[in-house]
Amino acid sequence: MAKLLLINGPNLNLLGTREPEKYGRTTLAEIEQNSRKIAASLGHDVDCFQSNHEGAIVDRIQASRQDGTAFVIINPGAYTHTSVAIRDALLAVSARFIELHISNVFAREPFRQHSYLTDVAVGIISGLGVAGYEMAIRAASAQLAAGK
Amino acid sequence: MAKLLLINGPNLNLLGTREPEKYGRTTLAEIEQNSRKIAASLGHDVDCFQSNHEGAIVDRIQASRQDGTAFVIINPGAYTHTSVAIRDALLAVSARFIELHISNVFAREPFRQHSYLTDVAVGIISGLGVAGYEMAIRAASAQLAAGK
Amino acid sequence: MAKLLLINGPNLNLLGTREPEKYGRTTLAEIEQNSRKIAASLGHDVDCFQSNHEGAIVDRIQASRQDGTAFVIINPGAYTHTSVAIRDALLAVSARFIELHISNVFAREPFRQHSYLTDVAVGIISGLGVAGYEMAIRAASAQLAAGK
Amino acid sequence: MAKLLLINGPNLNLLGTREPEKYGRTTLAEIEQNSRKIAASLGHDVDCFQSNHEGAIVDRIQASRQDGTAFVIINPGAYTHTSVAIRDALLAVSARFIELHISNVFAREPFRQHSYLTDVAVGIISGLGVAGYEMAIRAASAQLAAGK
Amino acid sequence: MAKLLLINGPNLNLLGTREPEKYGRTTLAEIEQNSRKIAASLGHDVDCFQSNHEGAIVDRIQASRQDGTAFVIINPGAYTHTSVAIRDALLAVSARFIELHISNVFAREPFRQHSYLTDVAVGIISGLGVAGYEMAIRAASAQLAAGK
Amino acid sequence: MAKLLLINGPNLNLLGTREPEKYGRTTLAEIEQNSRKIAASLGHDVDCFQSNHEGAIVDRIQASRQDGTAFVIINPGAYTHTSVAIRDALLAVSARFIELHISNVFAREPFRQHSYLTDVAVGIISGLGVAGYEMAIRAASAQLAAGK
Amino acid sequence: MAKLLLINGPNLNLLGTREPEKYGRTTLAEIEQNSRKIAASLGHDVDCFQSNHEGAIVDRIQASRQDGTAFVIINPGAYTHTSVAIRDALLAVSARFIELHISNVFAREPFRQHSYLTDVAVGIISGLGVAGYEMAIRAASAQLAAGK
Amino acid sequence: MAKLLLINGPNLNLLGTREPEKYGRTTLAEIEQNSRKIAASLGHDVDCFQSNHEGAIVDRIQASRQDGTAFVIINPGAYTHTSVAIRDALLAVSARFIELHISNVFAREPFRQHSYLTDVAVGIISGLGVAGYEMAIRAASAQLAAGK
Amino acid sequence: MAKLLLINGPNLNLLGTREPEKYGRTTLAEIEQNSRKIAASLGHDVDCFQSNHEGAIVDRIQASRQDGTAFVIINPGAYTHTSVAIRDALLAVSARFIELHISNVFAREPFRQHSYLTDVAVGIISGLGVAGYEMAIRAASAQLAAGK
Amino acid sequence: MAKLLLINGPNLNLLGTREPEKYGRTTLAEIEQNSRKIAASLGHDVDCFQSNHEGAIVDRIQASRQDGTAFVIINPGAYTHTSVAIRDALLAVSARFIELHISNVFAREPFRQHSYLTDVAVGIISGLGVAGYEMAIRAASAQLAAGK
Amino acid sequence: MAKLLLINGPNLNLLGTREPEKYGRTTLAEIEQNSRKIAASLGHDVDCFQSNHEGAIVDRIQASRQDGTAFVIINPGAYTHTSVAIRDALLAVSARFIELHISNVFAREPFRQHSYLTDVAVGIISGLGVAGYEMAIRAASAQLAAGK
Amino acid sequence: MAKLLLINGPNLNLLGTREPEKYGRTTLAEIEQNSRKIAASLGHDVDCFQSNHEGAIVDRIQASRQDGTAFVIINPGAYTHTSVAIRDALLAVSARFIELHISNVFAREPFRQHSYLTDVAVGIISGLGVAGYEMAIRAASAQLAAGK
Repeated sequence: MAKLLLINGPNLNLLGTREPEKYGRTTLAEIEQNSRKIAASLGHDVDCFQSNHEGAIVDRIQASRQDGTAFVIINPGAYTHTSVAIRDALLAVSARFIELHISNVFAREPFRQHSYLTDVAVGIISGLGVAGYEMAIRAASAQLAAGK
Repeated sequence: MAKLLLINGPNLNLLGTREPEKYGRTTLAEIEQNSRKIAASLGHDVDCFQSNHEGAIVDRIQASRQDGTAFVIINPGAYTHTSVAIRDALLAVSARFIELHISNVFAREPFRQHSYLTDVAVGIISGLGVAGYEMAIRAASAQLAAGK
Repeated sequence: MAKLLLINGPNLNLLGTREPEKYGRTTLAEIEQNSRKIAASLGHDVDCFQSNHEGAIVDRIQASRQDGTAFVIINPGAYTHTSVAIRDALLAVSARFIELHISNVFAREPFRQHSYLTDVAVGIISGLGVAGYEMAIRAASAQLAAGK
Repeated sequence: MAKLLLINGPNLNLLGTREPEKYGRTTLAEIEQNSRKIAASLGHDVDCFQSNHEGAIVDRIQASRQDGTAFVIINPGAYTHTSVAIRDALLAVSARFIELHISNVFAREPFRQHSYLTDVAVGIISGLGVAGYEMAIRAASAQLAAGK
Repeated sequence: MAKLLLINGPNLNLLGTREPEKYGRTTLAEIEQNSRKIAASLGHDVDCFQSNHEGAIVDRIQASRQDGTAFVIINPGAYTHTSVAIRDALLAVSARFIELHISNVFAREPFRQHSYLTDVAVGIISGLGVAGYEMAIRAASAQLAAGK
Repeated sequence: MAKLLLINGPNLNLLGTREPEKYGRTTLAEIEQNSRKIAASLGHDVDCFQSNHEGAIVDRIQASRQDGTAFVIINPGAYTHTSVAIRDALLAVSARFIELHISNVFAREPFRQHSYLTDVAVGIISGLGVAGYEMAIRAASAQLAAGK
Repeated sequence: MAKLLLINGPNLNLLGTREPEKYGRTTLAEIEQNSRKIAASLGHDVDCFQSNHEGAIVDRIQASRQDGTAFVIINPGAYTHTSVAIRDALLAVSARFIELHISNVFAREPFRQHSYLTDVAVGIISGLGVAGYEMAIRAASAQLAAGK
Repeated sequence: MAKLLLINGPNLNLLGTREPEKYGRTTLAEIEQNSRKIAASLGHDVDCFQSNHEGAIVDRIQASRQDGTAFVIINPGAYTHTSVAIRDALLAVSARFIELHISNVFAREPFRQHSYLTDVAVGIISGLGVAGYEMAIRAASAQLAAGK
Repeated sequence: MAKLLLINGPNLNLLGTREPEKYGRTTLAEIEQNSRKIAASLGHDVDCFQSNHEGAIVDRIQASRQDGTAFVIINPGAYTHTSVAIRDALLAVSARFIELHISNVFAREPFRQHSYLTDVAVGIISGLGVAGYEMAIRAASAQLAAGK
Repeated sequence: MAKLLLINGPNLNLLGTREPEKYGRTTLAEIEQNSRKIAASLGHDVDCFQSNHEGAIVDRIQASRQDGTAFVIINPGAYTHTSVAIRDALLAVSARFIELHISNVFAREPFRQHSYLTDVAVGIISGLGVAGYEMAIRAASAQLAAGK
Repeated sequence: MAKLLLINGPNLNLLGTREPEKYGRTTLAEIEQNSRKIAASLGHDVDCFQSNHEGAIVDRIQASRQDGTAFVIINPGAYTHTSVAIRDALLAVSARFIELHISNVFAREPFRQHSYLTDVAVGIISGLGVAGYEMAIRAASAQLAAGK
Repeated sequence: MAKLLLINGPNLNLLGTREPEKYGRTTLAEIEQNSRKIAASLGHDVDCFQSNHEGAIVDRIQASRQDGTAFVIINPGAYTHTSVAIRDALLAVSARFIELHISNVFAREPFRQHSYLTDVAVGIISGLGVAGYEMAIRAASAQLAAGK
C-alpha cells in the first residue's frame, strides 16, 4: 500500500462548473473522490491538492518528500508550458510522476505543444477526458507493483 | 449600468513613485480613482485589483465569474509575456477584456513583442500613457452599449 | 488648436459597404465625418486621406511636413505588414502618430502579427471597432495637450 | 459490444525478444493476447495487426472502414514521426483512435518530439510500458461507453 | 560614351531638407547635378529619376530597355527590403546595376539587413554618404570601360 | 454566360518581347486575345488588366465588385510574394480566383516559394507556360458550371 | 501519339466513396476512365496506377523508363511531403511530370506546404478538384506537342 | 557600510538536504550564515530571503527600495528562465545586482541557457558551487567600494 | 571469418544503366560481385540486398539478427533523409554499420544534408564513387579485426 | 595629408595568379602600388599589409593605434564571416574603416552573407572588382576631408 | 600548492591603455601581477600568457599538460564565440578551467551570447570588471582545496 | 606516381598520447609513417603537415599549388566547423581533397554537424578510426587512377 499525490494546477478548480457540453459535468471534487475510490480498490491512498499558484505547487511537491508520497500524478494545467520551477521541484524530490491532461493539449495552440515536464515524467496521458485520472491511478499502481 | 474589473499586474503598484520624468507622477491609486470617476460618468462601476502574484490574478479573474463583472480591463505587466494561466483564466470565465499597456511594449525588448493575451482580447491599447486607462473605460462602455 | 491627419490605407474605402454583420454599417465617409466632429469638440481640425497606393500614402505623409500637421492617426491596412516606405516617410517627417486597426489584427494570420510601424508609433489601438477612431482622436488630443 | 483494431508499427514485432532489462520480456504476441482478454472482459473484440511497411498499415486502416471497427489503438513506432500517409488514412476513414507509445518518446531524440498523429488523435498514452496497452483498451471502452 | 540611369527610391526626394546634421545639406537636385557633371567628365550622360511609387520605378526601369541605357545606379530606399517587382524589372531588362545606400543600412534595424537586389547587382556601395554617388558613377564607368 | 477578369501583375507586359528562347514569343496581347477566344468558345467574356502598380491592381479588383465579374484569374507576378493588399482586396470583394504562374516559381529563389494568395485561392496553376492561361479559363468555366 | 502515365498515391483509391459533399462522387475508376477518354481525344494513351506503398510507386516509376512512357502525371497524396525516394525515382528516369492535387494543399496544415516534387516538376495544378486531371492531360499534351 | 540583499529562488531551500554527493552538504541556512559572516568582515550587513513564489520575490525586491539596500545578490533558480516580473522588479527599483548560480546552468538543458536577468545584471557568477556566494559578497563589496 | 550484409536502398538498382558519364558504367550487380570478391580476399562473406521499399529494408535488417551477420554496410539512398524506421531497425538489432553514399550527398540539396543514420553509425564514407564500397568492406574488416 | 592602412586578408596574396578570366590578372602587388599612387595624388600615404593569419591581422590593427594611421581599408577575405577578434581589434583602436570585397560576396554561399564588420564599418564597397580599391581610397580621402 | 595558468585572449593586451573611463586604468601587466600576488597569498603560482593568435593559445594549453598546471583561468576574448579549437585543446588536456569576462558579454551583441567554452567550464565569472580575476584565483583555489 | 599532401589540424598532434582507451595508442607520427608506407605501395609519395594555426594551414595549402601536389587529404579538426579561410585556400588552389575525421563527428555536439569543407570535398571518411587514413590514401589513389 502506497500514498499517491494528485496535483491539479491553475483553473482546474473550475472543472464541471462551466461549459459542461465541452468538459463534462464532473467537478474536481468528484474527480478527487473517484480517484481515492479507485486507488483504495487497488490498496492505495490519494492525497489531493489544487492551486492556481505556481509557488504553492512547488511548496506542495517539496512537502511530498517527507510525507511518504510514493508516486505523483500531476495535471499541471497552464504551468505545463511555463514552469521550470515545478519541473525542478519534481526533480529535487526525485518524484516519479505521470503527467496528465484532460483535453488533447497537442491539438490546441502551438505554445501548448511544449511541456517542461514531459521529458522527466514516467509517462503521459492526454486527451482521455476525466477518465484519464482513473487510468493514471491504475498506471501508477502498476508502476509501483512492478517495483519501478 | 455594468460592473467593470480593472486588473493591474506586477510592479504597476509602483506607478508614479519612481522615474516620474519617464512614467509620469500619476500613482496607481490616482489611476484607479480616475477610472472609477470616468466609469461613473458613463454609468458604470469599476472594481480595482493589483497584485504581483500570478496566482492571485488568476484567483481574482475566476472570482469575477460570480460577482457580476461585465467587462475586464487588464494591464498584465510582465505576465503579458509569460502567463498562460492568466490567459486560461480569462478564457475559463469567458471574460471579454481589453489588454492595456502604458508604454509601447512593442518598441522594447524582443521578448516583449509576444503577448499570451492579445489574440483572445477584444482589443489592445498600448503606448498612450496613463490616458490609456480612460480610453479603455470608454471603449469597454462602448462595447457594452453595442451589446457585443 | 492643432491639425490632425487621418490616413486610411488599402481597402478601407470599402468599409460599411460589405459584410455589415462583420464590420458594421459605418462607411469611411461617416468615420471621417465623425472624427472631424469629435476633433472639433476638442478644438482640432482633421485632414482625411485614403489610398490603395503605397506611394500615394508616402507622398501624403511627406506633404504633412509643410501643411501644419501636428499629429497623425494611421490605419495602414495591409501596408502595416509590408511597407518600410511608409515607416520611413513617417520617420522622415518626424511624425508623431498612433497606429490604429479596426479589427484585432493580432488574432488573425501569423503574417499580420508583425507591423513595420509599431515600434516607432506613439501607441496602438487595435480591435475596438470603428470606435477606435474616436479613441485615437482623443488620445492624440491628450498627447498634444501634454505637450509631448 | 464493439470491435477494436490494435495496430503496431515497425520494429514492434521484436518486443520481448531483445534487451529485456530495458523493454521487458513481454512479447508482442503476449501483448495482443492480453489486450484481447481485457477487451473481452469489457465486452469487446480486438483485431491485431503489425507491419514494418507504411503502405501495409495504410491498407489495413482503409480496410477498417468496412469491417465494423469502432475504435483504433495505434502504436505507430517510427512512422509516428514520418508518415503523413498513415495520418491521412486515419482521417480518410474517420477513425477515432488513441496513439500509444511504450517508452516516453518525448524524452528521446528531438525528432521524436513531433508526431503526425497527435493533433488528430482522441488522446495519447506514452511511457507507461506495456501496461499502456491495457490503459488504451480501457480508455477506448470508456470512450465507446460515453457514446463519443 | 554611354547613358547611365540614376534611380532614387522613396523618401530620397527629402534629402538635404531635413536633419542636415545627420544627412548633410546636399539636396537630391544637387546630387543629380553633381552626378551628371562627374559622368560628363568621364564622357557619359546621366538620366535621373525619383519616385515614391514602386510601380513607377518598375515602369522607369522597363523604359530603360529602349532608351539606350547602358548602366543603372539605384538607391532603392525602403524598397530595397520589400520589392521583388523592382528586382524582377531589373532582371527583365537585363540591367547591369550598382546598388547604392547613403547610410550604412546594415548597421540599422535587422529588417534592413536583407536586400532583394544585392545578389543580382554588379556591386554595392553603402555608407559612404552622398560621396557614394560619385563612387558609383566612377565604378559604372570603369565597368563599361572594361567592356563587362 | 459569365464575365471573367484576367489580371497580370508587374513585368508581365514584357512577355514575348525578351528572352524568347526562355519565355516563348507569345506577347501579353496574344495571351489576352487567346484567353478571350477560348472563353468565348465556352460562352464567357474576359476583361483583361495589367499593371506594374500594386495600388492599381487593388483598385481594379475592388471595381470588379460592381461590374459583374464572376471569376478572377490572376498572375500576380512579383506581388505574389509581397502584397498583402492584393490578398485583402480579393478577400474584400469575396472574389473566387485562380492563381497562375507561367514558370514554376517554386523551382526558383526561396523567397518565391511563399505566396500571399495561395491559401485563399480556389486553386493554382504553375509552370505550364502560356498554356496555363487556357487551363485557367477552362478551370474557371468548370468551377462556374459546377455552381461552386 | 504518346503514352502518359497517371500515378495516384496513398488514400486516393478511396475517392468518391466517402464525404461526397466534400470530395464529390467521382471515383478513382471514373477519373482514370475519363483521363483515358480525354487523352484519346488528343491522340494519347494513359496508363493508370495507384498504390498506398511508397516502394511500389518507386518501382512503377522505374518501370516507366522501359515501357515508352512520354510524360507522367502524379498526384502523390501524402508522399508529396515525405518521399525523397519518389523524387529520386522521377529524376532517375528523367521523367517529365506534372504534380497534381485535387484540393488546395497549400491552404491546409503547414506541413503540407512543402513538396519534395515541386521544384523538379514541369508544373503544378492544385485545388481545381477532379477537373484538374483533365487539365493535366491537356497540359501534358501541350508540352509534348511543343516538343518540350 | 552597506546593506546587501541575498535572494534565493525556488527549490534552493532544499540545498544540503538532498543529493549531497552532487550539491554538497551545505544547507541554505549555512550559506546565509556564512554570507553574513564574510559581509561583516568587509563591513556590510546581509538580509537573506528565500521563496518558491515568483510574486513574493517581486514583493521583496520592491521592498528593498525603502529599506536601504545597496546591492542585491540573486540566485533566481528556475525563475532565471521564466520570470519577466522579477526582471522588471529589479529594473523598477534600479537595483544593482549580481546573478548567481551554484551549478553551471549553461551546461544543462537548452532552456536553461537563456536568462531574463543576465543582460541587466552587473555580472554573473555561475558554476563555482556554494563558494560562489562568497565570491558574490566580495564582488558586491568591491563594486560598492569602487563607488559604481 | 564473418558475414557482412550489404544493403542498397531505393533507386540504386538503376546504377550503371543511366547517365554513365555521371554515375559510371558499373552496375549494382558488378558492385555486389566486387564487394564479395574483396571481402573473400579478407576472409569474409557478403550478403547483398536491394529494395525500393522501406518496410522491406526494415524486414531485412531484422532478419540479420538471426543469420549471423557481423557487420552491416548500408547505402540507404533516399531513405537516408526520411526513414526513422530503418534507424530503429538498426538500433533494434544492435547492428554495427557503415553508412555509404556514392556521391557527395552533402554537396546537393539542403534536405540531403541531414541523415537519420549518421549519429548511430560507426562511420561514414561519402563521395568516393563506387570505390567507396571497397573502402567500406575494408573498413568493416578492420573494425572486426580490432574486435570492436 | 594622412596615413591610410590597407589590409588584405587570407588568400588575397594569390590575386592575379590564378583564374585570371574570373578575378583578372592584377596581382596584389599591383593593387597595392596603384592604391599608393592614387592616394599620393590625393595627398595621402598608404601602408599595405596582407596575412593569412587572423592573429597577425589583429596585431597589425593594434599597431595602427600608434603609427599615425588615420583610416583603414580592409578586405578581410574569409575572416569577414568568422572573426570577432578582428572586429574587436578595429573597435579597440577606434579605427574608422571601409570594408571592401572584390567580388559580390552577397551573391555567393549563404554563410558569406553575414559579416562581423559591416555594422561597425563606415561603409562597404563590394563587387566592383579591383577598381573597388581605388573607390575605397577616394572614399577614405573624402571622409578625411569632411573631417568625419 | 599548485600552479595556475592564466590565459588572456585577443585584444586584452590593450587593457588599461584605452578608454580608461570604460575599462579602467588597470593594465594587463598589473592584472597579472595582482593575480600572482593573490595566488601567492593562497599558496599558489600563476603562469600568465596572452596572445592574439588562436593557434598560439591552443599551443599554450597543450603545453600545460606537461608543466604541472593544476587549473586554468581563461578570458578568451573574441575567441569565446568563434574557437572550437580552444575548446578542443582544453578538453584534450582535460583542463579544469574557469571562463572569465571583464565586461558582461551577455549584455552586448547577440553573437556574444554564445560561448564555445561555457558548457565545459567549471564555472563562469562575467561582468565583475578586473576584480573578476581575483575572484577567479580564489575560486580556483577553493576548487583545488575541495579536491575537485 | 603522384604527390599527396596529408594535413592534420589543431590538437591532432596529441593523438596516441592521451585517452588511449578512447582514441587508441597510435600516434600522429605513426599515422604519418603508415600513410607514407601505404602510399608507397600504391606508387605515391605523401607530404605530412600538422599545425594548430589556421593561418599556417592556409599557408601550407597555398604552397601546394607549386610543389606538385596532386591530391590533398585533410583532417581539419576543430577548423572543420569554423574556418572559411581553409575552405577558400583549398578552392583557391583548386585542390581535390578528401575530408577525414577519426571519430564520427556527426554523433557529437550539434555545432560539429556542420563542415565548411564538405560540400567542396571530393568525399568524406568519418568515424573509421585511424584506419580512415589508409582508406583515404587508397581512395585518393583510386581517384588519381581514374583520372578524375
